[in-house]
Amino acid sequence: MNLDFAKSDGLVTAVVQDHASGRVLMVGYMNQEAFERTIETGFVTFYSRSRRKLWLKGESSGHRLVLKDISVDCDLDAVLVQVEALGPGVCHEGYQSCFFRRLEEGEWKAKEDRTYNPAEVYGGQA
Amino acid sequence: MNLDFAKSDGLVTAVVQDHASGRVLMVGYMNQEAFERTIETGFVTFYSRSRRKLWLKGESSGHRLVLKDISVDCDLDAVLVQVEALGPGVCHEGYQSCFFRRLEEGEWKAKEDRTYNPAEVYGGQA
Repeated sequence: MNLDFAKSDGLVTAVVQDHASGRVLMVGYMNQEAFERTIETGFVTFYSRSRRKLWLKGESSGHRLVLKDISVDCDLDAVLVQVEALGPGVCHEGYQSCFFRRLEEGEWKAKEDRTYNPAEVYGGQA
Repeated sequence: MNLDFAKSDGLVTAVVQDHASGRVLMVGYMNQEAFERTIETGFVTFYSRSRRKLWLKGESSGHRLVLKDISVDCDLDAVLVQVEALGPGVCHEGYQSCFFRRLEEGEWKAKEDRTYNPAEVYGGQA
């Protein structure tokens, strides 16, 4: 029973969840190679749609995602990746989770403080 | 600050999470109209990529998703929808969550029992 990479241009959606707290940390995408590397290495690897290449999460920041468990949905085009997140946060904007803004009265508002300074971690990189 | 519908052919990814248990229940997609209907009605509405039309979740099964909270990710192309799920399960195959199979020794294996009989709920429908 294989993943269905055909439905979305060779990619499946990957939802990343903290295995201990249950918090949803980010959404990424995997092609077959990224999925296989994730399983083989135990560190979550995505396919970056903007850079069009494999992306070992935490490659530059050190904030890697250690694979704890992985599930697939009924139509085989999305995976739920449960992880231990190394470091203070997965979001390149300095937050624990990429989902740091919630809808309040029609506007997206930050609901929490940063957990690290992204300028110190990522330096001058985009 | 608007959602970025341009990146994926007019859609954003919508991760649905049980607001009480934290369990990730399913992944769907929303176009702008589906997003707006979700906010306006308080019931989660997707855009079905296969049927190419709006899809009020639970329309035929009665298993609606009551919106409790909604967050957006840093690049504005995915939303985290926290819900109260009405009924025994969101998956059309009869499970509480669409993510009912986990990877075990290289194979996807069901990790739980069905919570309802889909034939009784959906009848002869596809």
